[in-house]
Amino acid sequence: MTAGLVALRRTFDGEDRDRALAEALFDGLRAATGDGIGITREAYSERESQALDLVEAKARELGLATERDAGANLVVTLAGREPELPFLACGSHLDSVPQGGNFDGAAGVVAGLAVLSRFRDEGFVPRRTIKLYGLRGEESARFGKAYMGSSALFGQLSAADLAARDHASGETLAECMRAVGVDMARVETGEPLLDPAAVAGWIELHIEQGPVLAARDLPIGIVTGIRGNIRHRNVACRGEAGHSGAVPRWLRRDAVFATAELITHLDRHWRTLLERGRDVVVTAGILGTDPQEHAIARIPGAVNFSFEVRSQSRETLEAFYDLFLSECGLVGEERGVAFEVDRRLESAPAVMDPGWIARLKAAARDLGLPDEEVPSGAGHDAAVFANAGIPSAMIFVRNEHGSHNPREAMAMADFLAGIAVMREAVREAVR
Amino acid sequence: MTAGLVALRRTFDGEDRDRALAEALFDGLRAATGDGIGITREAYSERESQALDLVEAKARELGLATERDAGANLVVTLAGREPELPFLACGSHLDSVPQGGNFDGAAGVVAGLAVLSRFRDEGFVPRRTIKLYGLRGEESARFGKAYMGSSALFGQLSAADLAARDHASGETLAECMRAVGVDMARVETGEPLLDPAAVAGWIELHIEQGPVLAARDLPIGIVTGIRGNIRHRNVACRGEAGHSGAVPRWLRRDAVFATAELITHLDRHWRTLLERGRDVVVTAGILGTDPQEHAIARIPGAVNFSFEVRSQSRETLEAFYDLFLSECGLVGEERGVAFEVDRRLESAPAVMDPGWIARLKAAARDLGLPDEEVPSGAGHDAAVFANAGIPSAMIFVRNEHGSHNPREAMAMADFLAGIAVMREAVREAVR
Repeated sequence: MTAGLVALRRTFDGEDRDRALAEALFDGLRAATGDGIGITREAYSERESQALDLVEAKARELGLATERDAGANLVVTLAGREPELPFLACGSHLDSVPQGGNFDGAAGVVAGLAVLSRFRDEGFVPRRTIKLYGLRGEESARFGKAYMGSSALFGQLSAADLAARDHASGETLAECMRAVGVDMARVETGEPLLDPAAVAGWIELHIEQGPVLAARDLPIGIVTGIRGNIRHRNVACRGEAGHSGAVPRWLRRDAVFATAELITHLDRHWRTLLERGRDVVVTAGILGTDPQEHAIARIPGAVNFSFEVRSQSRETLEAFYDLFLSECGLVGEERGVAFEVDRRLESAPAVMDPGWIARLKAAARDLGLPDEEVPSGAGHDAAVFANAGIPSAMIFVRNEHGSHNPREAMAMADFLAGIAVMREAVREAVR
Repeated sequence: MTAGLVALRRTFDGEDRDRALAEALFDGLRAATGDGIGITREAYSERESQALDLVEAKARELGLATERDAGANLVVTLAGREPELPFLACGSHLDSVPQGGNFDGAAGVVAGLAVLSRFRDEGFVPRRTIKLYGLRGEESARFGKAYMGSSALFGQLSAADLAARDHASGETLAECMRAVGVDMARVETGEPLLDPAAVAGWIELHIEQGPVLAARDLPIGIVTGIRGNIRHRNVACRGEAGHSGAVPRWLRRDAVFATAELITHLDRHWRTLLERGRDVVVTAGILGTDPQEHAIARIPGAVNFSFEVRSQSRETLEAFYDLFLSECGLVGEERGVAFEVDRRLESAPAVMDPGWIARLKAAARDLGLPDEEVPSGAGHDAAVFANAGIPSAMIFVRNEHGSHNPREAMAMADFLAGIAVMREAVREAVR
């Protein structure tokens, strides 16, 4: 670039530059990882790697240093004045659910790149080094386990986690991680790939995955805490198949009626807990009889379903989980069926750092934006960083139609507002 | 066969001959239509045709006249002394559900062939002609519609029935009927292929598909009536997908929780009706979320399921169906989902002929067998004959493990007892 062009670029309006960068990256990601319906960048897959490559190429084009860490995540670095200090980390994940949306995860990586690029262009050299992470493997859709990328950083993937299999191909998580270049010798022994003491903080921008900001007409929100969850990828209800006309009610061991009753009981407990002011949501996202057995006139002998409970309170999670097991026993006994659960998966709830919350709120106010606090119903990598002892924070950006679907809709103006808040809060912290 | 062999055969014990015939036919059917797990002879399929061919070959070998009627059913005839009289019909169906058992349906055809063969060998010439039917298309597994073979005989297949599609291949019932040789020009105009006035009665032996005879330690039972049913092959519950963590309970339109509540309400109504002495069973044999959308962390936006209610009472059927529609509306409104039903399918309940019931009971007593009456929870072609105005009757044979599965188990001694009762009652009627 000639000296004249550099000067011209300096004067170019910063927000327009953020917008151009964001549009170029989102367009590129959509083109590279679109699946015809939404976008698909499954955890530790080829398409996830393509997303990392694309962001890395853009970072280099912007003059930033890049590398891949031992977890095969993308790391973009803006060196600080005192590189021996713990660095400030930011970013989000680049994977997605199948037929998902383009912004879930990627928005946080694009935001981080916009911040680092702006600082570099302004000639702002932070006191601490700032590192942007384009993480892999946040979504649970492929292996049932969420936050695999950030969990690997802190040595938190168990042998059972690594043995989890892709629903479709049957490949294990370990195989898929190795295939994209993760240092499995370290991951398998539980060695942290990143020392929490070396990280001063974690800042993550993410689209809101629920309707709260839209309902409250807020472009952004400052996150106070993140729900944890307890899950089973599969609960099998085993009864006995039979001819629907020929077996009377008292001799039936109908897996569908039993599962329907179990879910209805869970729903009743859920309602009661909400009435008592507890934070909890319960979901059975996957449910089905065995297609090999399908006949209208057959009493279904088996049903499989997934179970998930989320709460900001560890105590509420455990209490609801106990209710779930207890109802499995009671309904099973009553109806002559057995509920068999696979491995229990869990993610701990997390509290965001009060200092960072204050800094983000101040930045929002300074920019003339609302500084409202919101809880995060969905889980995020930020919970893993926070539970590793790193002061963590999140900015939510308003988004219509939820996430995990191609209809997610984040307005560029809201996204630019979120980037601005993140940038000014970070600038304040590393001045 | 030489005269000497014929004489030798005459003296051969009749029951041993019935047993040898039955074993040869069941073994042949199992070999021809086994699928590795159970047996598969789907309605109007190649394998159903193989079953008809196999029985026809055996009937000819036994010296009986055979033909295919306009419905492509197998008809085996033993001519009577007064052929101008309405004939007596017997038999059952030769199709099966996928991975079903070998006896459901076929037992009644084998029994009829044993009776006709014995009469022929004895030189017994009945007053009326006796015709054995090896019917096609009784099971609803393939097209959602049951009793297609017998319904076609009486011109009762509607255009909508004929347009029903095979779940897997997408072929219509009409296409599959035509492929095996049914006279579709007549079926499509609703022209009866068989004049009910030409039929003096219908006798059908069938394995019991429930546990009642086994529980009561009865080898056979005389059927008093047959349950009818109302069905939907598919009810679609449409809600809205969303991120499981991010959408609170009051904003959810969760198709799984809604369907679970609907089924639980139906179960409660069912229990209440039973307590009030009504005959009713309710089943959702097929149930599932959309595999294309599967993720543990996605609020399921759609569930599909089948609905079936059966009763011996037309009034109870309609009353329960009204409850079902009403609950769809109430639960749908409460939970922000819509239940969309496909075409309503139905089979009328039927009452068996008192004269035939008395004749069968007398034959059982004469043979030293119990003459207990039992209702039929499952539907049978006999219901279609009865509702066409033909005096109809059924004999149930004890069977373990239900039907529509490969574990069905009918003891040969019980089957031979059922054949004997059928033979002697028929002999009495056509003497």
